[in-house]
Amino acid sequence: METLWENRFAQRTQRMESSAIRELLKLTEQPDVISFAGGLPSPDVFPIEEFRVACNKVLKEKGEQALQYSVSEGYTPLRELIVEQSNASGMTIGIENLLIVTGSQQALDLLGKIFINPGDRILVEHPTYLGALQAWNAYNAEYIPIPMDHDGMVTDALMDAMRSGPKFIYALPNFQNPSGVTMSLERRKKLIEIADHYGVPIVEDDPYGRLRYEGDHLPSIFQIDSQFRNHEQGVYNGNVIYTSTFSKILSPGIRLAWVIAPPAVIRRMVQAKQGTDLHTSTLNQMIAYEVAKDGFLERHIPKIIETYGERRNIMLGALDSEFPAAVEWTSPEGGLFLWGTLPEHISAVEILEIAVKEKVAFVPGHSFFPGGGGHNTFRINFSNATPEMIRTGVSRLGKAIKKLIAQKEEND
Amino acid sequence: METLWENRFAQRTQRMESSAIRELLKLTEQPDVISFAGGLPSPDVFPIEEFRVACNKVLKEKGEQALQYSVSEGYTPLRELIVEQSNASGMTIGIENLLIVTGSQQALDLLGKIFINPGDRILVEHPTYLGALQAWNAYNAEYIPIPMDHDGMVTDALMDAMRSGPKFIYALPNFQNPSGVTMSLERRKKLIEIADHYGVPIVEDDPYGRLRYEGDHLPSIFQIDSQFRNHEQGVYNGNVIYTSTFSKILSPGIRLAWVIAPPAVIRRMVQAKQGTDLHTSTLNQMIAYEVAKDGFLERHIPKIIETYGERRNIMLGALDSEFPAAVEWTSPEGGLFLWGTLPEHISAVEILEIAVKEKVAFVPGHSFFPGGGGHNTFRINFSNATPEMIRTGVSRLGKAIKKLIAQKEEND
Repeated sequence: METLWENRFAQRTQRMESSAIRELLKLTEQPDVISFAGGLPSPDVFPIEEFRVACNKVLKEKGEQALQYSVSEGYTPLRELIVEQSNASGMTIGIENLLIVTGSQQALDLLGKIFINPGDRILVEHPTYLGALQAWNAYNAEYIPIPMDHDGMVTDALMDAMRSGPKFIYALPNFQNPSGVTMSLERRKKLIEIADHYGVPIVEDDPYGRLRYEGDHLPSIFQIDSQFRNHEQGVYNGNVIYTSTFSKILSPGIRLAWVIAPPAVIRRMVQAKQGTDLHTSTLNQMIAYEVAKDGFLERHIPKIIETYGERRNIMLGALDSEFPAAVEWTSPEGGLFLWGTLPEHISAVEILEIAVKEKVAFVPGHSFFPGGGGHNTFRINFSNATPEMIRTGVSRLGKAIKKLIAQKEEND
Repeated sequence: METLWENRFAQRTQRMESSAIRELLKLTEQPDVISFAGGLPSPDVFPIEEFRVACNKVLKEKGEQALQYSVSEGYTPLRELIVEQSNASGMTIGIENLLIVTGSQQALDLLGKIFINPGDRILVEHPTYLGALQAWNAYNAEYIPIPMDHDGMVTDALMDAMRSGPKFIYALPNFQNPSGVTMSLERRKKLIEIADHYGVPIVEDDPYGRLRYEGDHLPSIFQIDSQFRNHEQGVYNGNVIYTSTFSKILSPGIRLAWVIAPPAVIRRMVQAKQGTDLHTSTLNQMIAYEVAKDGFLERHIPKIIETYGERRNIMLGALDSEFPAAVEWTSPEGGLFLWGTLPEHISAVEILEIAVKEKVAFVPGHSFFPGGGGHNTFRINFSNATPEMIRTGVSRLGKAIKKLIAQKEEND
């Protein structure tokens, strides 16, 4: 029976695999493992009481609406709130530019659905976000990797890649998942210029933009592009598709994110969304609106920054004291992750095997490289573990690394 | 700029259109229009206070879990509850057979994603559910329509169709959307037999099965199939994929449904779901569990049946007195819809144009026929309007129909 079903599945499922991240998330569930593997926000900064109050209000005052079907575009007051806050942050968009989605994973899926013909090439940062690969593998995308350095995507490497006729460029410019690297202002401008020249759209994924712990905020690619476009009646019609989410600033459990794009793209995404999940939970949209209106995010985000900034610092300090000198890592200015590089001959998967026995977990980096490579890299999350867990976990991880390096030296 | 984007979209988007249903749902939003167009449950039977109490409890006792990411398979207690209730209703399944999805529209999308190669043929009832066509058009499915009569899909017409190598058979056996027709027990058995003989899976969509207003409950196709299979440790491994939803028995606004299928199918759907929306809202799953446990549905569903059953009777009575004799309609034993047939030379779209001016709406039937035809058919919903609105709306609609018939006679 199993084989029978395997033969029935569509060709595209051959590239669907339970991701490394997902399998490792399962380890997180064992209470004695300290996991730096997931990308989980800390429940310490969930506004639980605000959600409870909002939920009560919504169900008391608008219960019939909250439990009913609603339109695919999203709950209008929430859309208006996001438009207003986006414009206050320097964008120029209208409500026709905005779609509510069921988490930013759905944004990636819908973009794949409306843009990707089998074999279409997508330009991606190398490494890149695994969730995007999972979404677009289902549409049989091919990837052209663009190398990264400490200023993000190396735009000088773009020219050649552009001549291969890519469908779009995918960039995660702020505190990238997995690398923690931020794209410099100059590179953002260069990317827009090249994309515009070749007529290739940019998909900008910005889940962490507001979680900066040091340095100055940089305008998003969308915002820069938006500034040199003409806006008819305040509607954006440029070359960038932007997505962000409530997952890292309110709650991931409510599956709520949004896409900002030219109206032609939004209309097509709405049609795709109708066939995908009809609409995003009315109840969750109304609760999020109740929580987020009246400036709550302005008061709440600084608390998240304080908590995660402290954890980042503790993590960096612990790495300094516990990791052998042969290991390098990034010092991210924001976000949830930092990125490590082991000596060339050391495999991160081998480290993980030892680490799990020491009751600590992280994600080996190779899955983030669709073009191959990265076997000696790894991603570490610092938002979800408490300071004490970070110190203990890094100490265990340092021990695992030292153990493998020693083994390798013995074998030489 | 618009044309530029149009040229970029994937081929599959050529078959994505804003559906007739969706466009008509927009009419519903005008408060002076009486709409029989949507498939909305009545807010009169939403358990709003139960949701409010459950939401409070979940956020007070398990707020950190409710707002956090969770696994793609679904919230374990909710999965266990559905397994338990399914087994109590005569199925034999284990938790490996069950996946929580973000509304049954997502079940249809994920089935398309894992099964349909471009050009694959799907056997569908004729007429069939529009949401399934919307989901599968995105995977470039082709359809082989099987005619229906008052006993549902005409299984004698299946044999020829089976030799065309279909990927699966899609059936909505209980109070079908759009026709309101119920597949007879004999036909269910025949369908299972033929599907099994040819090795073609059945996808059974059962959103309304528990909403029966007259006649005896019939076992689902899944249940019948399940009864003649061997179950290793209580796990189902037959030929049917079953989906049902909380939309019609609790609330559609929470986007919560489930799929029951062999473990090989569930595993592949979980992988597809990871790339589609990662997981279904943790908060909504935990709230639904709180509401539904301890037998709430057993107490609540009879109230829905009472309300909708009364509305169905009022609708049938009003049709009898207000519609001209030349119009025919079904008398559904349950569900949300009935189905009308106009004289051959009368177009339901033309009726709708007049009806909208009379402030009443319904859905013309032709969109439900992927094989073409049905221009003189229409679907009417009776769950969402109050008895008074039903009487007024049917009177307006009768007037619109009589007006068009008179016009046609004049022109002859």
